[in-house]
Order: sequence, then structure tokens, then C-alpha cells
Amino acid sequence: MEYNDQMKNRVKRIEGQLRGILRMMEEDKDCKEVITQLSAARTAIDRTIGVVVSSNLVECVRNADEKGENTEELVKEAVNLLVKSR
Amino acid sequence: MEYNDQMKNRVKRIEGQLRGILRMMEEDKDCKEVITQLSAARTAIDRTIGVVVSSNLVECVRNADEKGENTEELVKEAVNLLVKSR
Amino acid sequence: MEYNDQMKNRVKRIEGQLRGILRMMEEDKDCKEVITQLSAARTAIDRTIGVVVSSNLVECVRNADEKGENTEELVKEAVNLLVKSR
Amino acid sequence: MEYNDQMKNRVKRIEGQLRGILRMMEEDKDCKEVITQLSAARTAIDRTIGVVVSSNLVECVRNADEKGENTEELVKEAVNLLVKSR
Repeated sequence: MEYNDQMKNRVKRIEGQLRGILRMMEEDKDCKEVITQLSAARTAIDRTIGVVVSSNLVECVRNADEKGENTEELVKEAVNLLVKSR
Repeated sequence: MEYNDQMKNRVKRIEGQLRGILRMMEEDKDCKEVITQLSAARTAIDRTIGVVVSSNLVECVRNADEKGENTEELVKEAVNLLVKSR
Repeated sequence: MEYNDQMKNRVKRIEGQLRGILRMMEEDKDCKEVITQLSAARTAIDRTIGVVVSSNLVECVRNADEKGENTEELVKEAVNLLVKSR
Repeated sequence: MEYNDQMKNRVKRIEGQLRGILRMMEEDKDCKEVITQLSAARTAIDRTIGVVVSSNLVECVRNADEKGENTEELVKEAVNLLVKSR
């Protein structure tokens, strides 16, 4: 699969968020602030997973439709990727 | 959207799981057992969400392709539904 | 472990939410509405898990403190229950 | 709150995981591999959240017990931190 810049930038941003969280821990910041940031990083990972799985599903369905193949299996696979990812 | 029997049966089963959890609580069952069951119900909801969103995405992409419409917005919407759901 | 009425009522309410979702599916309601409700049920399960694990942790730590036992293991166990539950 | 080395090392490791994911995306690796790694990073964040919230809860309960204060509010707060974090 090819990943576009938007996807890669998402991952770069999450990496930056984690560096920020480490700094907050080193400065003994309040537990609530640290959790809020960890939570934001978590949601950002969720979004990235959603974008990659959905984009991939759309591409695979189009390829299958062109070849006249069944797409039920593709939906199942997408669900497995989404749920494993939780 | 039309929901197939498989989707409805998923929801019925989760309802049954919750009745079982209530019974376990009334019998003062061990915390670990109750959490394991709550966790299973949670994963079952995740799967149901994944199935509904993915099936809907596939259908919408086909409709849009037929009309020659852009599908980027559809992927975004699917991701929003998936992430809101966490 | 003993479960208080608040915990049991949470589970009863989630059961009711699922009955509502089944009805929505039978009436072919919009995908977004169904996902919103599934998502609400999911968060309600998360809260129930959080309440059960946290209450149990507090009780166990008190018992361990009284006996002069180490509590590190208890925190680990709570984390395992919380994370398994995702 | 003070964060121990174990907590900080968790965050450092997740940062490293994300760098690895970015590399995989740049090499156009298979979607399943990328999702598996994103999913692992997600679980690692969940664990970190669980460790921070549980450790903080234990400390706060002990302080409250010493002062003879009620701890119900502390459990509620922990649950709010855990659920917001999903």
C-alpha cells in the first residue's frame, strides 16, 4: 500500500506529542495534564488506523469490483484490522 | 441503511451478555470474571461498529463511483464515525 | 467482590440501550444514529469497567496496607484488567 | 505527581515505535503490518495511562485515609481520567 503525506504527517505529529509528554513527566507535571495528552495521542493513533483501513478498503473494493470478485471478505478483513487495533 | 440479520443478531447477543453480567454481579462473582465479560461485550460492540461502518462505506463508495462523484469525503466520514465510537 | 446498586444499574441501562439499538436497526434508521448509540453503549461499558476496577483497587490496597503487604502487584493487576478490557 | 523511570521508559519506547511506523510507511509496507504496529503503540499508550491513573489513585487514597477524608470522589476522578482517555 502507498501511504500519502497526510498519513505520514499524522504519525510525525504523534511522535512529537510523545516527546512533549516525556518532557511533562520530567517536569513532574500534574497527572491530569499528562493523561489528557496521552489521551490525545491515543485518539490520534485511532484516527490514523481509521484512515489507513478505510482508504485501503475503498481501494480493494474497487479492484474487486473491476474483476467481478466478491467483496464480503474485504469488509470482514477491514473489521478484523479495526478491532485488533483496539 | 438496511441492517442484515447478522448485524441484528450481534446486538441481540450483546444484550444477552449484559444480562449474564448482571447475574454475575448479583451473585458477587469475582471482579476478574466480571471484567472479562464486560470486556467481551465491549469488543463485540466494537465489531458491530466496524461491520456497520465498513458495510456502509462500501455501499456509499459504489454509489458515488456510479455517479462519478468524489469519494474522499466518504472515507473522512467513515473515520469520524469510527473514532467518535471510541 | 460486592457490587453496589449503582454498578448494577449501569449494566441494566446498557442492556436497555442495546434493546433500543436493535429497534433502530429494525426500523432501518440512519447509520450515523445507530453508530452514535452503539458508541454511547461502548462508553457506558468503559465507565462500568473503570468503576469496578478502581473500586476493587482501593479496597485491595487498604487490605494490603493493613497487613503491611506490598501493593505494587495490585496496581499491575488493575492495569492488566483495564488494558485487557480494551 | 512524580513519574518513575518505568513510566518514562514506556513513553520513550512508544516514541520509538512511531518512528518505526513512519519508516514502514515510507517503504510502502503492507497495510496489515502497519496497522499491527499502530495497534501495538495504541495498547502501549493504554498501559501507560492505566499505570499513571492507578498509581495516582493509590497515592491519593492513602493521603485521604490518613486525613480521614472520603475517597469516593477519588474513584470517580480516576474513572473520568480513564474514560476520557478512550
